[in-house]
Amino acid sequence: MTNPTAAMIVIGDEILSGRTRDSNMHYLAQELTKIGVDLREVRFIADDPEAITSTVKALSAAYGSVFTSGGIGPTHDDITADCVAAAFGTPIGVREDAYQLLHAHYDRQGSEFNEARQRMARIPDGAKLIDNPVSVAPGFIIANVHVMAGVPAVFEAMLASVLPTLTGGAPLLSQTLRIQRGEGEIAGPLGKLAVEYADLSIGSYPFQKDGIYGANIVIRGQDGARVDAAMMRLAELFPA
Amino acid sequence: MTNPTAAMIVIGDEILSGRTRDSNMHYLAQELTKIGVDLREVRFIADDPEAITSTVKALSAAYGSVFTSGGIGPTHDDITADCVAAAFGTPIGVREDAYQLLHAHYDRQGSEFNEARQRMARIPDGAKLIDNPVSVAPGFIIANVHVMAGVPAVFEAMLASVLPTLTGGAPLLSQTLRIQRGEGEIAGPLGKLAVEYADLSIGSYPFQKDGIYGANIVIRGQDGARVDAAMMRLAELFPA
Repeated sequence: MTNPTAAMIVIGDEILSGRTRDSNMHYLAQELTKIGVDLREVRFIADDPEAITSTVKALSAAYGSVFTSGGIGPTHDDITADCVAAAFGTPIGVREDAYQLLHAHYDRQGSEFNEARQRMARIPDGAKLIDNPVSVAPGFIIANVHVMAGVPAVFEAMLASVLPTLTGGAPLLSQTLRIQRGEGEIAGPLGKLAVEYADLSIGSYPFQKDGIYGANIVIRGQDGARVDAAMMRLAELFPA
Repeated sequence: MTNPTAAMIVIGDEILSGRTRDSNMHYLAQELTKIGVDLREVRFIADDPEAITSTVKALSAAYGSVFTSGGIGPTHDDITADCVAAAFGTPIGVREDAYQLLHAHYDRQGSEFNEARQRMARIPDGAKLIDNPVSVAPGFIIANVHVMAGVPAVFEAMLASVLPTLTGGAPLLSQTLRIQRGEGEIAGPLGKLAVEYADLSIGSYPFQKDGIYGANIVIRGQDGARVDAAMMRLAELFPA
């Protein structure tokens, strides 16, 4: 019983140069975990057509669904839609429903619906639009690739409308035990526990803060009774 | 005149599940930018031997240097060193100098230097150790791959000793102009500016906060005079 898989592509020079700190990956990771979809890989790549196209191709073929973040605005560096279309060999052009949505939005604002803004209505043929309640310009879904905005408020709003359409798996249950002993002291018995409960994932995450050190041991699995049993054994091994 | 390139591999289920939020990528991105090394790609992957080995192979071949974060502690889920050795077809075993460092450290602490802790002295043959002033267990460099810890304080300390050994390029200079107009309004003239200054990177990063919206335009390049010239033209195009 394995869960559906997913990957993410975060597009933008500003993140790779350290100017901006991405928050969409962490948000997506948490949301997918809740519905039982396994995020297996995330790639951060530059605003480079070849990198975008080849990464979309590779991850779309390897995983159940793919989510992209960034590069769908009106400026010259917003090239994601064209690159995703190229990855699938699909024509792209201004789409009537997206055009009308944007037109009405800028009319309401009293802003000019100029050529740059019209670019945001460029959607690969056959794609399904993703609603954007924040700033109207839509994302889209083509094959298993969900193309979404980089601005966190917009990314999160788009994801909210996409999540109910995904087929989740059994939600991953997890329990954590905080152990104030060095990882090196607990590693032996912990490794044996991991072999005994090979159907679960047992991770050890060390911490060091204010002179206190230890590790958080996280036991994850889809079967609650197994997770409980492993957690009880763990607590016996390392009493507080 | 292109800068040296780099890539990063962040290893750990806990990040992909959303349990932990990575900070090492953002830190590395900023440090590399300062010394003129272009971080071109970052991949987040699971604690999976095949994924680690194949990703190390791919990125080591594609970029000037590679940095990994995570998976070098004493517990059963710390498999990075073995996977990196496998990627290069190099034998791995307990190394005497690393063993002695760790042995002395645990003796000083009055802790047992047990089998789990001895695992942290496993280093691929021929690798160079990376000093760990925080918790002693070393990282290592093999070929162009720098294997470092996931705990941020340790990652940052290891990076500090690695950075002076890297050959940097011309530091990337950048200037930012904050423009309180929608991206769609400025996109046309901005696109023309980007063509005129094709030797520079001109990025537009929209913001929306507390009812104020606009874009930060960032002009980046290695030639300060060109960056200045483009920034002056930008300020003329969009007076405050």
